[in-house]
Amino acid sequence: MNKVSSAFQSQPLPLKNIAINDSYWTPYVELVKNTVIPYQWDALNDAIPDAEPSRAIRNFRIAAGLEEGEFHGFVFQDTDLYKWLEAVGFSLSTSPDPDLTKIADEAIDLIAAAQDEDGYINTYFMVAAPDKRLTNLHDCHEFYTAGHLIEAAVAYYEGTGKTKLLDVAKKFADFICLTYGPEPGQIRGYDGHQEIELALIKLYQVTGDTKYLDLSSFFIDERGQKPSFFREEWERRGRKSFWTGDVVQKHFPSLEYWQAHKPVREQEVAVGHAVRAVYMYTAMADLAILNGDQELLNACKRLWNNIVHKQMYVNGSIGSTHHGEAFTFDYDLPNDTNYSETCASIGLIFFARRMLQAEMKGEYADVMERALYNTVTAGIAEDGKHYFYVNPMEVWPEASKGNPGKHHVKAVRQKWYGCACCPPNVARLLSSLGSYIFTSSEDTLYTHLYIGNETQVVLGSSKATIELTSELPWKGLASLQIQAVEGDGIFTLAVRVPSWSQDTSFSVNGEEITAEIRDGYAYFKRTWKQGDQLSIHFDMQARRLYSHSNVRANAGRVALQRGPLVYCLEEMDNVSPLTSVRLPADAEIREVTGIWNDEVVFLEMDGIRQEEDTEHKDTLYSTAPPKQEAQRLLAVPYTLWGNRTPGEMQVWIREQS
Amino acid sequence: MNKVSSAFQSQPLPLKNIAINDSYWTPYVELVKNTVIPYQWDALNDAIPDAEPSRAIRNFRIAAGLEEGEFHGFVFQDTDLYKWLEAVGFSLSTSPDPDLTKIADEAIDLIAAAQDEDGYINTYFMVAAPDKRLTNLHDCHEFYTAGHLIEAAVAYYEGTGKTKLLDVAKKFADFICLTYGPEPGQIRGYDGHQEIELALIKLYQVTGDTKYLDLSSFFIDERGQKPSFFREEWERRGRKSFWTGDVVQKHFPSLEYWQAHKPVREQEVAVGHAVRAVYMYTAMADLAILNGDQELLNACKRLWNNIVHKQMYVNGSIGSTHHGEAFTFDYDLPNDTNYSETCASIGLIFFARRMLQAEMKGEYADVMERALYNTVTAGIAEDGKHYFYVNPMEVWPEASKGNPGKHHVKAVRQKWYGCACCPPNVARLLSSLGSYIFTSSEDTLYTHLYIGNETQVVLGSSKATIELTSELPWKGLASLQIQAVEGDGIFTLAVRVPSWSQDTSFSVNGEEITAEIRDGYAYFKRTWKQGDQLSIHFDMQARRLYSHSNVRANAGRVALQRGPLVYCLEEMDNVSPLTSVRLPADAEIREVTGIWNDEVVFLEMDGIRQEEDTEHKDTLYSTAPPKQEAQRLLAVPYTLWGNRTPGEMQVWIREQS
Repeated sequence: MNKVSSAFQSQPLPLKNIAINDSYWTPYVELVKNTVIPYQWDALNDAIPDAEPSRAIRNFRIAAGLEEGEFHGFVFQDTDLYKWLEAVGFSLSTSPDPDLTKIADEAIDLIAAAQDEDGYINTYFMVAAPDKRLTNLHDCHEFYTAGHLIEAAVAYYEGTGKTKLLDVAKKFADFICLTYGPEPGQIRGYDGHQEIELALIKLYQVTGDTKYLDLSSFFIDERGQKPSFFREEWERRGRKSFWTGDVVQKHFPSLEYWQAHKPVREQEVAVGHAVRAVYMYTAMADLAILNGDQELLNACKRLWNNIVHKQMYVNGSIGSTHHGEAFTFDYDLPNDTNYSETCASIGLIFFARRMLQAEMKGEYADVMERALYNTVTAGIAEDGKHYFYVNPMEVWPEASKGNPGKHHVKAVRQKWYGCACCPPNVARLLSSLGSYIFTSSEDTLYTHLYIGNETQVVLGSSKATIELTSELPWKGLASLQIQAVEGDGIFTLAVRVPSWSQDTSFSVNGEEITAEIRDGYAYFKRTWKQGDQLSIHFDMQARRLYSHSNVRANAGRVALQRGPLVYCLEEMDNVSPLTSVRLPADAEIREVTGIWNDEVVFLEMDGIRQEEDTEHKDTLYSTAPPKQEAQRLLAVPYTLWGNRTPGEMQVWIREQS
Repeated sequence: MNKVSSAFQSQPLPLKNIAINDSYWTPYVELVKNTVIPYQWDALNDAIPDAEPSRAIRNFRIAAGLEEGEFHGFVFQDTDLYKWLEAVGFSLSTSPDPDLTKIADEAIDLIAAAQDEDGYINTYFMVAAPDKRLTNLHDCHEFYTAGHLIEAAVAYYEGTGKTKLLDVAKKFADFICLTYGPEPGQIRGYDGHQEIELALIKLYQVTGDTKYLDLSSFFIDERGQKPSFFREEWERRGRKSFWTGDVVQKHFPSLEYWQAHKPVREQEVAVGHAVRAVYMYTAMADLAILNGDQELLNACKRLWNNIVHKQMYVNGSIGSTHHGEAFTFDYDLPNDTNYSETCASIGLIFFARRMLQAEMKGEYADVMERALYNTVTAGIAEDGKHYFYVNPMEVWPEASKGNPGKHHVKAVRQKWYGCACCPPNVARLLSSLGSYIFTSSEDTLYTHLYIGNETQVVLGSSKATIELTSELPWKGLASLQIQAVEGDGIFTLAVRVPSWSQDTSFSVNGEEITAEIRDGYAYFKRTWKQGDQLSIHFDMQARRLYSHSNVRANAGRVALQRGPLVYCLEEMDNVSPLTSVRLPADAEIREVTGIWNDEVVFLEMDGIRQEEDTEHKDTLYSTAPPKQEAQRLLAVPYTLWGNRTPGEMQVWIREQS
């Protein structure tokens, strides 16, 4: 199998070439390897007390004829196993583990045993509704599920060199290639939940077989064409939805939710289910570059700009409403009812990295970093066994219980859910973290994320071993050191200048140097020698962030950010209600350590709070103006919230000005 | 028929004795008489273009065998006609109208013709599901519908002296009395939607027949007993809900929604569907007084206090969530997602007047006034043909369209809905407005609302004709003038001292006098002579209101109230976004007329607004602190909002302090 050459401006380095060694990130990587992956395996095997059973393994056993029984779970339950296998593949690529390999191989044997002769595999349809196969792509996620199989297969192949799962994936993909497409006799259809589009590109990249690239292009460009495939499919099945059973629907639902309301090239704003959207945009960006398709790239840029400049929360999360886990509209960013699904930020990271490969612009990496350091890691508890699906900007625990419009907002992380999309998604992202640190072109190594690691890379006519050390996110120093170099050593190190660092300086071997900075990257071309060290000095001063005035929810409010980390107030460090406090516009922001541990930086400020009005404590409305008293405010990195005493949380703090 | 004597501390005067003549309220009364009642009659007859057909009259024609066809509409569709007839009865009591009487009599003939021999009447069950009668009181509103029939019958009898509809109502009530109750062979059940409980008390009051009082007591005290009637009924019908058809429900729903989770005497806080709750509390208060039941009265006081001091919006509206149109929990008063149904404020007025009859305390009338002057009248457009069901505290029209969590919040009043509860409820409240102005005891006339009218009343051994004139809500003067007096003239005039008037003074025949003030009422006992005039001078200075600090939504915000009227900002008088403005804590509040007309008082203030940041207009988050500029602020009475150019609206304004 030959890896295809690529038209990307730059490419990520192979995951197995990157050994992460970082005081901040290594614990996350280890947590995934040592806790999350085993825990999720237990979950897949229904071995976690008090958690909803997944039944994923059992469904495969039934489909393979090894066990009698009924299918259980969601129609896309298989993806739990696939996402787990993908994470395992990533993990094995840098941390070989014979025991884990054995478990994964057995799971793969089970999948292979369940696969139909024609290549089709989906335990729901095989066990529960064999006559309904491929009759409802709109609702039933069959190609979404196939996409996760493909991604798992590629990761497992790249991590272990083993081809069994890749063969299963290719067999199913070949079946789809034959059946779906623009040719006479093929079905001009596509899936309700985008995912296979980006997966097919990975399959193309690992196999070199252009039919997978072409099928991905077909799915992307067919979407939103008229007459609508979804509408015709709906008519064929008697105007019924999988989710509502035998009820004949009066109206065909609006196609915005599925991003199928118009051809993707014509889409101007991000709409609908946020995860589907960013998975689709990821594939669009891949295709735009691989096919040299400027029109498609322009669509990606428009959609990117709409998200990032109009619909993204300050923690890099997206999806303003839990109704359909969806985007709403420009500047609608409510803090206490947002969805901001962990998976959607993961998808935004996928999209960002592709855009970065198309165009070297710091904003893409800024957003990637914002989503990673804030939302993705907030999604997982310190123990690796509890997760946030929803990442709120403000939590009032009583309201999460007592107001049905906020039931989706959890004040504490939850165990494995029935619909367990986020936990395995976090696991696969963190176990493939290495792929997001660098990309490289012919003679340039681009550093996007300052996550410590050692890597080998070929640049120009040289082969270099480079160690990245980083004191982020707590301290503002990162360095690239040339550990070894073969060849002439002439290449460029391009390092990102984060937008949060308002004064970034650089030194080589201890001497400050002036950098050429273009679009958020500083470029250093020279003859690099063993032992050379390029250091980047970041301005770590905590800053106040203000929202665009169209964001109604944040009027008069300020968020705090230091380095890549967004901060929040938690009740336990402050007072209840958190809304009673204000931060004076001129208050100094001090750094405090020793609360969490000696590294984690809290922010401390002299704030004020509304005094408790004991005279009117039984009065709901009073003409007495509230009195103020001094209140020390303490902010914790958002990503760590909810790990101590449960209580209120608030990102956007009222400012006194 | 003898009117029963009553154990109420005071009683409303008969509606027909009160001729409203008030520059503020007469237009509303006339609007109901001349526009709303005819318009709603057209609605009942499906004669309004572009509005959802009601089918109410047609359903009765089919049930009466006068027409062939199928039932259409909600299971409680009959109540649209009953509520209309009740409003007609009220209206005819003070404004006889032969044409309207003829139309109403024909409608009553139709109802009588539709009634079953055993007394049962409900067109849904008679036409669409005769075998399902009284099998699902939990969902199907049969006694709720009966309650509205009874209320209509009482009003029509009191307004016209005609007994035909009263006979229909008694016949149905008699049937229910026989079938439901605590005796062996009777069903220990009650309705899912409270309403019959308060209606039966009216029927008792007009007929003197204690069996209706007893049935009401039974319904109230049976509610919430264990084992649960609703649960047993649910089991009997195979665990199905009327609203979801043949679906077998996994879980029996939580009974809080129906206020049936525990015996009503033990209920501590207002929960569940807000309209059902306040209709029930109204009946509880009636029963507490009529039966001299202190325990029940204590429950009423607890529930009152919980609503008014923890769960009521500043416009006198209730129901913090549209999920179930329900209460949520203490201090949860979101401004942009509240339900605050017009009907619920009407029910709160019912409850308030009963509490006032039990205990002469200004707070009850304060709340009655707050709900009436703000929410109830906000519910109806100036043209009498458009209605708000939801009364939001903050509107962003784009969010009402673009954020599904706010779809229920309408930026403009709507035509008659399919579920048309609020319009006929507003009509019946406004056409019976006279019943809320006064109550009287043996020798005291209590004035609760300053709405101009002339009335005759017997007080002690005197009979007096009294004219109340009022310049409210625009100016702070009201007077009671003795137009005529027979007998010794020794009686007490007790007038409410509104909590919003921080400096109220009194004069008799122009001379200031000191009043004895107890619990919000000033008492004037003397020998009243013809021509005597008691004047009340209110402090009309506009005030700022602050919320209890537990109300997260209003932190740092201020509402404006002048007299009984709460104010709001509308976009057309100010700027967009409205959240960009602030009101300095020391800004003077000036009164302005001539904008709406020469009477309506607007409030004008020197505010500030966040300058548009043209430098960062494409940036969602920026470190640049917002700049301020001067902004004249203009506030309009909340009750009038949404009658001019549609746009944003905001009650709680950010304060600069």
